[in-house]
Amino acid sequence: MARLKAPQRREQLIEVATRLFAQRGYEATTTAAIAEAAGVTEPILYRHFAGKQDLFIAIVRRMSEQTLSQWRALIDGTDDPAEQIRIIAREFPSQMRRLEDAYHVLHGALAISNDKKVLSFLREHYIRIHAFFVTIIRDGQANGQFRADLDPNVTAWNFIYTGIGYAMTSLNLPPFDGADIEPLIDSILSPLMP
Amino acid sequence: MARLKAPQRREQLIEVATRLFAQRGYEATTTAAIAEAAGVTEPILYRHFAGKQDLFIAIVRRMSEQTLSQWRALIDGTDDPAEQIRIIAREFPSQMRRLEDAYHVLHGALAISNDKKVLSFLREHYIRIHAFFVTIIRDGQANGQFRADLDPNVTAWNFIYTGIGYAMTSLNLPPFDGADIEPLIDSILSPLMP
Repeated sequence: MARLKAPQRREQLIEVATRLFAQRGYEATTTAAIAEAAGVTEPILYRHFAGKQDLFIAIVRRMSEQTLSQWRALIDGTDDPAEQIRIIAREFPSQMRRLEDAYHVLHGALAISNDKKVLSFLREHYIRIHAFFVTIIRDGQANGQFRADLDPNVTAWNFIYTGIGYAMTSLNLPPFDGADIEPLIDSILSPLMP
Repeated sequence: MARLKAPQRREQLIEVATRLFAQRGYEATTTAAIAEAAGVTEPILYRHFAGKQDLFIAIVRRMSEQTLSQWRALIDGTDDPAEQIRIIAREFPSQMRRLEDAYHVLHGALAISNDKKVLSFLREHYIRIHAFFVTIIRDGQANGQFRADLDPNVTAWNFIYTGIGYAMTSLNLPPFDGADIEPLIDSILSPLMP
């Protein structure tokens, strides 16, 4: 395999680790297996990452950044907060499938990890997503589009809860005849409407 | 340890397996470890369960039956569908903590299992929960309390998505300052209201 420059090698190791963690589970995956699948020696892997936990954190950080930058790009063309939520929710099923391995890693850790550092990074991820939605909800309250008496913090958590449940069941229980996205979006937006 | 009768032994093995799966993960737990923690030999365990998968299925079946029978008992005193949903949702945080280990097992499998039989049992669990909520929503539509134009299937899935997301974040990310249950219930019920 050709020698990669440091940032590309780092990126490649993150991709390989995401795939292996998703396939075999975080606990069952060794840094030796990740190095082998990436076509490098373990000492090379350790030049880029302090270990498995560090790789996990890099996966969550990358997924978190990608998700938020994709969402910002998606809503860039509209000032309408309800429409912003609709656009993001409509895109969610395909975004989820595109990042399927990363979602498996994230949800696997959320379900069973006992690692305090891993859980604290997950928590920060959800807090970032929460802040993103709170801003949109506040915008809609400020312009009179959304009910002013609702606590945007609660509604934003509700979005996240729904997203986690939707992703976990849709990705992992197929064939799964859950809710279609359009009526689900209506159901999510409805509490906000005066 | 005193000899238990078959149903008690079965029950004890389910409890021990739930605790070990929750602590160590399903993949990392052996039937030998479950037998040892239960104070029996592996051949005794195999008299009651065909293996780990069979124990998992017994855990899901028991949790599913317990959840539904608790919910039925909770709503027994009222014919008001909105109040039935409120009562169940209000009880959910403490039910979730009481069944914390079983939830870890269930969500761990939902997040990372590749076992088709395990996933098919999970799917059936959610389909049973879904049917339970669809009945309540239809009752509320029939008596004019809930909007008749909503698809009860979508709303019932939305309840389940919210429950999964709420349970996963509340159980696994503490200290977690998510949504309080009362405004969350209002947010869940609001789309149903005419």
